[in-house]
Amino acid sequence: MVKHHASTQNIKIAVDAAMVTIREGDLHALLIQMKKSPFEGLWALPGGLLEEDEPTLKAATRILKTQTGVTDVFLEQLATFDDVDRDPAGRVVSVAYYALLSDQNLDLKTTEKYSDVRWWPIRKLPTLAYDHKQVVQEAIQRIAAKIQYTNIVWSLLPKEFTLTQLQHVYEIILRKNLDKRNFRKRIHDLKLIKPTGKTRTGMAHRPAALYQFKHRKLEYVQVM
Amino acid sequence: MVKHHASTQNIKIAVDAAMVTIREGDLHALLIQMKKSPFEGLWALPGGLLEEDEPTLKAATRILKTQTGVTDVFLEQLATFDDVDRDPAGRVVSVAYYALLSDQNLDLKTTEKYSDVRWWPIRKLPTLAYDHKQVVQEAIQRIAAKIQYTNIVWSLLPKEFTLTQLQHVYEIILRKNLDKRNFRKRIHDLKLIKPTGKTRTGMAHRPAALYQFKHRKLEYVQVM
Repeated sequence: MVKHHASTQNIKIAVDAAMVTIREGDLHALLIQMKKSPFEGLWALPGGLLEEDEPTLKAATRILKTQTGVTDVFLEQLATFDDVDRDPAGRVVSVAYYALLSDQNLDLKTTEKYSDVRWWPIRKLPTLAYDHKQVVQEAIQRIAAKIQYTNIVWSLLPKEFTLTQLQHVYEIILRKNLDKRNFRKRIHDLKLIKPTGKTRTGMAHRPAALYQFKHRKLEYVQVM
Repeated sequence: MVKHHASTQNIKIAVDAAMVTIREGDLHALLIQMKKSPFEGLWALPGGLLEEDEPTLKAATRILKTQTGVTDVFLEQLATFDDVDRDPAGRVVSVAYYALLSDQNLDLKTTEKYSDVRWWPIRKLPTLAYDHKQVVQEAIQRIAAKIQYTNIVWSLLPKEFTLTQLQHVYEIILRKNLDKRNFRKRIHDLKLIKPTGKTRTGMAHRPAALYQFKHRKLEYVQVM
């Protein structure tokens, strides 16, 4: 440690949380709308300063609950963002977290400090405050990498799902079409999912078998 | 931002740098030996506090040069370490970087603030200060994951190398033996390396062809 800097360092530490889900066939991010200058009317990731006795994960969990109403998510550290001018109010280094949520009907609710909270499609984001556009982009890149070498897609799917739903999640995140036969062979070979014995019936399709993940926790496995 | 905390937050931000190489057939980390209490005589990763107008990558580069003499390395962000009691002197959140170095004869040189600087084998580390043992472990895990889906091993090898050397690097990091024929087939199929046309002659072996990486920069590719 360079001691003579210890008393003079004037940098704040914040956390930001990028929540991602799939709805209406596309990736969405959870954003809050700012009320105050200099970002009045702009949207941002939920975020705020770290408390003194608080690890960053705990801060992200607290802030997510307060600013969006979202609880019980598995947050993972994304990266630390540190451009010296990323916050016009002064130097703030931000530790960013991300999480994947299934498209459940979350009861979103923000505080009076913000105007609104809602999901925004990744391809049609509004203007974001701070460097949050970059944070969202890095979160999406990380997720696209991670679904290829882990079972992390379970967190984007309902408890029971069809193989078509599973393939769609991969196709949406990787932004390419996958061969149905190869995809299903690979998924079966990996033994990550098991049939529930139930089927889903739709108006236009024949009944499709419903599956579930054997384990709904992170496992490292070469999916593709 | 929670405004009423902005003026009272009393947390410092530091950076730490985990330099990893392979020498004598095993992974090694670059450590400096501390002179002052409370860690007198213990070893630590090079590290120190962030300057106010300095991005963390620049701080890590500066500190690495000052404390170890190492320059011109490709540092990548590992993770941010934030246990509230990781530093006995007060709350310090540390942004950790890592890099892979080839086993060149680096001219290591520390400042008078430290007693020594040297490479330590990963499996026989001395007692480390702060949470640096955890940082080293996470760096090794990251490297083991990354050599499987990128060409990052180039940074651990000399410019020209044999296929046996390349395989040994994989075996040391993954801690398992690889089948020679499958490994060579896979490496050839990936077209990451090309023959130099030269051979290396040894006392006990027949001449081995020397190869080099086509690109000595990060590429994403499924190696294994």
